[in-house]
Amino acid sequence: MALQERAIRTRRNILVAAADVFADVGYEAATISEILQRANVTKGALYFHFSSKEQLAQAVLTDQLKSVPESPPRELVLQEGLDAGFLLAHLLGSGDPMVRGSIRLTVDQGSPHDGLDRRVPMASWVDYNATLLERAKANGEVLPQVDVEAAAKAFVAAFTGAQVLSKIMNDHADLMERVVDLYRHLMTSIAVPAVLVRLDMSLDRGRRVYEEAMELRREPQEAPAAG
Amino acid sequence: MALQERAIRTRRNILVAAADVFADVGYEAATISEILQRANVTKGALYFHFSSKEQLAQAVLTDQLKSVPESPPRELVLQEGLDAGFLLAHLLGSGDPMVRGSIRLTVDQGSPHDGLDRRVPMASWVDYNATLLERAKANGEVLPQVDVEAAAKAFVAAFTGAQVLSKIMNDHADLMERVVDLYRHLMTSIAVPAVLVRLDMSLDRGRRVYEEAMELRREPQEAPAAG
Repeated sequence: MALQERAIRTRRNILVAAADVFADVGYEAATISEILQRANVTKGALYFHFSSKEQLAQAVLTDQLKSVPESPPRELVLQEGLDAGFLLAHLLGSGDPMVRGSIRLTVDQGSPHDGLDRRVPMASWVDYNATLLERAKANGEVLPQVDVEAAAKAFVAAFTGAQVLSKIMNDHADLMERVVDLYRHLMTSIAVPAVLVRLDMSLDRGRRVYEEAMELRREPQEAPAAG
Repeated sequence: MALQERAIRTRRNILVAAADVFADVGYEAATISEILQRANVTKGALYFHFSSKEQLAQAVLTDQLKSVPESPPRELVLQEGLDAGFLLAHLLGSGDPMVRGSIRLTVDQGSPHDGLDRRVPMASWVDYNATLLERAKANGEVLPQVDVEAAAKAFVAAFTGAQVLSKIMNDHADLMERVVDLYRHLMTSIAVPAVLVRLDMSLDRGRRVYEEAMELRREPQEAPAAG
């Protein structure tokens, strides 16, 4: 058990180091030796968990959604969805290596021969948003004419564009402002008015939700093990 | 005069070839020899116009806005703005090398040491949209609470995100659908209702505007030279 736990921790440690290198220099320029140095592990340890740079990058891409703490449940489902986006923006803006690395790997176009499937994180986010919008619709929060699948893609595209623009213009200094502004526009044409006025889209929402999510994550560990 | 014209044509030819290579392989992997081959010019001709790969890439970035034909004037200024976005999407989707190359150079994060200023095309698009939204506001087309500068950034971010998502998921097959969908959401919270119902945001709008712009561009050449 302790051995398995250590293996999981080492794997995670390598993955975070790899994501950090990918964030800094991109996929092509990243080297295994730089990843080894940042993870402070041996070549053997790395190759025990990952067979190649490609496999490392694909694991970083696949883990993108998992790298974001779960958005706490809310009475308004749309608030829960907004919070997930704000959490992602908060992590990206505060330099979380897994989020930074996986987002750069997703957006950089790369070579068709690099073998990376960039659709994985995008498809997960679209699915996440579609499921959430379905729930919100069942809850009477969404205007009847809204096409859930298209709206889910609009939210993913809006986040992506906000972060690319903000990265280029000021290295993410105005990231939260851009994300909040686009989400406000989208919500205006998606949410029923009585829900719209109750949505919290303030600029510090991401930080507050992050602290709340961290609190929720700590709790189960403090409670005595039960099953 | 004829000599100068030839020089302009050669410069353009080299720039298009470079953009094409940047679109295919990205900045880092692009080589001068590949650009020479596609442009079918000598090394001397290339270095007469551009001193380095960096200068070529920066010229492609700087010319992004100029690569899109001017959006024809409309009674509704917001339609003019939409048309500019649809034109860009049409050119990107139909494989225009200058647009493909400059957009990839903009979005790929690259290295901080590559010396490229990716803010140039983004800032030009934000300025273009802000000027246009100001005109639309003066024309009574825009809701009073709209912050023109923020809305201009929202349009640029929306286009960017739509094209990145569409490129990843299906190599731009649904590009126009994604762009139109996001513009519809934005317009809903920006345009006054009486203008909103008159905006044409159909999927073939980009192609139609492109044909119209090409027609307009041909006309002055057919008329006899006057000054």
